Amino acid sequence: MDTPFGKHILAEYFECECTYLDSETAIRDLMLEAASRCGATIVGSIFHHFSPQGVTGVVVIAESHLAIHTWPEFRYVSADLFTCGTRVDPWIGFQYLKERLQPRKWVSKEVIRGRVEERFILPAYSKKVVSG
Amino acid sequence: MDTPFGKHILAEYFECECTYLDSETAIRDLMLEAASRCGATIVGSIFHHFSPQGVTGVVVIAESHLAIHTWPEFRYVSADLFTCGTRVDPWIGFQYLKERLQPRKWVSKEVIRGRVEERFILPAYSKKVVSG
Repeated sequence: MDTPFGKHILAEYFECECTYLDSETAIRDLMLEAASRCGATIVGSIFHHFSPQGVTGVVVIAESHLAIHTWPEFRYVSADLFTCGTRVDPWIGFQYLKERLQPRKWVSKEVIRGRVEERFILPAYSKKVVSG
Repeated sequence: MDTPFGKHILAEYFECECTYLDSETAIRDLMLEAASRCGATIVGSIFHHFSPQGVTGVVVIAESHLAIHTWPEFRYVSADLFTCGTRVDPWIGFQYLKERLQPRKWVSKEVIRGRVEERFILPAYSKKVVSG
């Protein structure tokens, strides 16, 4: 893996208008494409469809991981994009997911991982609440 | 899956004194046990050993996921414990990992997931920096 110092985006997508939140195949394709667009090196993935509904999936990448959980009944999706090093940009993945999921509202937070110093922990917590 | 409203602990363990950060088998056992102790329902897992060193692993649970990344060369471990619903307690997993990894320093943050309202986003961000 790359250095342990990286970015972790915690994303919440609300009121998603896309129609495939309950499709394991579609969500897998979405996440693999997001990883690819970030510039990540995919080393494995695991996806699971829940009964009666919902999909969970994780893409393990050489630079850490991407994760997604969908709740079709709430039209809500949570996503994590954790990428170490400087070569991969998780925000590209965040934007791609936003374009595809078509949320009416979304929240993103960026947390710096791998540093204990206070100065990296406090200001690195950025928050955006946006209504589309 | 359970309701989308849950807790996500972002944990950083520094200066770990345990000797198995580079063992995929040991890290898998550690994370499966952490998931079990949290009370989670395990639905799958994926682990990967990197060359020359480092292990990444994710345990998919019915209540979301647990993830770990180890950097033996830095004696550093990042972990995510994201559990939805109220039945599973991710802090039990955090404590278990701390006991087993034996870090000299650690940082934990708890982020509430699945809520857009400001009042849930801001105060839910708690931070602890602890030196053992």
